[in-house]
Amino acid sequence: MIKDLGGKVGEEVLVKGWVDVRRDQGKMIFLDLRDASGKVQGVILPGQAEALEVAKEVRPEWVLAITGQVNQRPEKNVKAGVLNGEIELEIKQVTVIGHAKELPFDKDVEVNLDTYLDHLPLTLRTERARAIFKVQTALIKYFREFLVQEGFTEIQAPKLIGDDAEGGANSFNVEYFEHTAHLAQSPQFYKQIMVGIFERVFATGNVYRAEKHATTRHLNEYTSLDLEMGFINDFTDVMMMENKLLAYLMPKVGEECKEELTLLGAKLPTVPDKIPTLKLREAQQIIKDKYSEDCTNEPDLEPQHERWLCEWAEQEHNSDFVFITHFPLSKRPMYTFEDPSDPGYAAGFDLLFRGVEITTGGQRIHEYDDLVAAIKNKGLDPESFSYYLQAFKYGMPPHGGLGMGLERVTAKLLGLENVKEATLFPRDRNRIDKLLSE
Amino acid sequence: MIKDLGGKVGEEVLVKGWVDVRRDQGKMIFLDLRDASGKVQGVILPGQAEALEVAKEVRPEWVLAITGQVNQRPEKNVKAGVLNGEIELEIKQVTVIGHAKELPFDKDVEVNLDTYLDHLPLTLRTERARAIFKVQTALIKYFREFLVQEGFTEIQAPKLIGDDAEGGANSFNVEYFEHTAHLAQSPQFYKQIMVGIFERVFATGNVYRAEKHATTRHLNEYTSLDLEMGFINDFTDVMMMENKLLAYLMPKVGEECKEELTLLGAKLPTVPDKIPTLKLREAQQIIKDKYSEDCTNEPDLEPQHERWLCEWAEQEHNSDFVFITHFPLSKRPMYTFEDPSDPGYAAGFDLLFRGVEITTGGQRIHEYDDLVAAIKNKGLDPESFSYYLQAFKYGMPPHGGLGMGLERVTAKLLGLENVKEATLFPRDRNRIDKLLSE
Repeated sequence: MIKDLGGKVGEEVLVKGWVDVRRDQGKMIFLDLRDASGKVQGVILPGQAEALEVAKEVRPEWVLAITGQVNQRPEKNVKAGVLNGEIELEIKQVTVIGHAKELPFDKDVEVNLDTYLDHLPLTLRTERARAIFKVQTALIKYFREFLVQEGFTEIQAPKLIGDDAEGGANSFNVEYFEHTAHLAQSPQFYKQIMVGIFERVFATGNVYRAEKHATTRHLNEYTSLDLEMGFINDFTDVMMMENKLLAYLMPKVGEECKEELTLLGAKLPTVPDKIPTLKLREAQQIIKDKYSEDCTNEPDLEPQHERWLCEWAEQEHNSDFVFITHFPLSKRPMYTFEDPSDPGYAAGFDLLFRGVEITTGGQRIHEYDDLVAAIKNKGLDPESFSYYLQAFKYGMPPHGGLGMGLERVTAKLLGLENVKEATLFPRDRNRIDKLLSE
Repeated sequence: MIKDLGGKVGEEVLVKGWVDVRRDQGKMIFLDLRDASGKVQGVILPGQAEALEVAKEVRPEWVLAITGQVNQRPEKNVKAGVLNGEIELEIKQVTVIGHAKELPFDKDVEVNLDTYLDHLPLTLRTERARAIFKVQTALIKYFREFLVQEGFTEIQAPKLIGDDAEGGANSFNVEYFEHTAHLAQSPQFYKQIMVGIFERVFATGNVYRAEKHATTRHLNEYTSLDLEMGFINDFTDVMMMENKLLAYLMPKVGEECKEELTLLGAKLPTVPDKIPTLKLREAQQIIKDKYSEDCTNEPDLEPQHERWLCEWAEQEHNSDFVFITHFPLSKRPMYTFEDPSDPGYAAGFDLLFRGVEITTGGQRIHEYDDLVAAIKNKGLDPESFSYYLQAFKYGMPPHGGLGMGLERVTAKLLGLENVKEATLFPRDRNRIDKLLSE
């Protein structure tokens, strides 16, 4: 790999990769070669007639196999702090193993989001995009690693679901043979069922929201990091688990992705031993006192409120995170457990991170009769949840869990403006790869 | 956890779990308690009036918190080789933390597949089902672990795709706002595009096949373990990678899931250093010679042929695996690379394992002009693949990859009759959780 060339000064090597930049100086040609590990500057000296002949033809993004010698650069040409900044590849032989057409624009030029998305097979090749998705891969890896250590079992939850979908309005319909199926908005029902088998489970997979709005933080298909755990005392056990998860995850990502974080200018959050926690009503009072907006009668937080509360948490607690608990039960799904010490309010929470909600979680109702009553209370028909309800009919422990949007966490961690930049192939109302109107 | 009780003889413990069996002997009540880690026999002795009072009410699958003392069993009552066979829990206190209704049948009784599937929230609680999905979790974990070690980067591939779906006939339609989208049959296009960024990538996620047939080996939604690698010499590099993967995976699963494999009576395959390999034409000749069926003019293998070839591989090479290579190009997708040394045949393979195909893989076309020609050759319109084609327009190395069905591998590894037993919540034409006709 190209990143290993620094240790091979004086040796002849074979490297394969893409032409990142080509500079033809007539007698000499410079070729910057790129592979998944990094870049190196190569030069074809005047004597190498055959290699020069081939190199005359090549253009950016052509794929080459190059034989050459690794040389130390003269002192004055050393680029300190840059990978392979102290070496150069003296190219002896060039073989073209893949051709490229002319590029629509230089891949490293900054383009607007639509152009970026129109050309992902090219624009994902930038160092910046590569760094973003390296970090994302590390996030998901350490999420799994932590949970396995904590005794969680990974499950494969289905995404094709029947009519007993959680909340019908925002679900996509699928033509399923002679029937209509739906795309899951979360693995909620299945991870709860699986608590009955493994007590602690997690799932990482796609979920779907048929939401029409286009914002910088919404996606119609995203990756949800879900966990669910049985035998909890109350919902704060779930919050503690998330606190512990983040305290594990962030330093691990920092360690593995040091270069990527530097490249992106991202600052790793420090995770407090105990993330500051506010009841929604307390949070609203802070907003009223500190920001002079009275939202104390609202059942939920607006985006601006979330940003204010994160500002408060940073100023008051030096924390990039803040838990907001006790949303009104009426605004939460039917399986939500009511806090017995605060009637009318959910034993659950949102986690805000750098101005945005990245997690919703809480305790769930575990007694069959209570759950049937809660379903009826929401004006829903228990019969349509009969499959899910079996888990409760046949005995369930107190349990709770949470879901975290991988792309949102990635975006906020890296300071990206739009969550689409943290999604390999983002889908929105107007776009599946190409614009749908085209 | 219950599995740790053996080390706590003489101590007072608190355990939580489900009532597996309850035997009321009037003066004494026996309760077998189960958690995710195992079972233990508990007994409430005549003196414990309060505990007896509570225990009189409890039934199978109720969830309890039990305080008791761990006692050595008398010699004659020791059950050798069984978890906690040498101990018993003398129950002092019982608290009900979750109730269950009457069960439709004893959970450990053998039921037919439809009844099993109708009641998964209950039937997945058997030791057998739990063992199956523990093994599946290990398979996916070590698949990822191996590939990370080999320099692969995990990607999150989208499942919602546009009209340029690979093979339209078998794809499910999704109502996507004002448009029609499809569910991905594989992450094929995206993992190829991502070779342009990371060289080596893998994905683990759901894929969808709108196939109407109901067999013991098909699912409409399954988990596909996919990898794709750049800078290969030819398709045999991909086969070698799979060979190495399996040689890593199987012993790791064997180690982690020893008890589960024993419980299921499963035999771990030995993976040869070099899995036997036959061209399709050679395989067909063997079938003709050994089994007297002439399929030498067929472009593909029938299920019976696959079983015969696996029998051959076991007898001749002591291998549970056999690669079949060089299927006719006409039967493979448009991106298939033609073996230059065997024109008309694909530089690709199927892997058969214990009578069933578990993998399809091969080299892909990497030159833009060749791929456009191949698309046209199949009677398809390159315009409808324009997004995918960008990757090739902007330079791609020789590359190849494979996809492996997680549920099929699980089923064959464990000797399950139907792949649905290796799927947590299997979907088929007639069933999404409940029967669709209900």
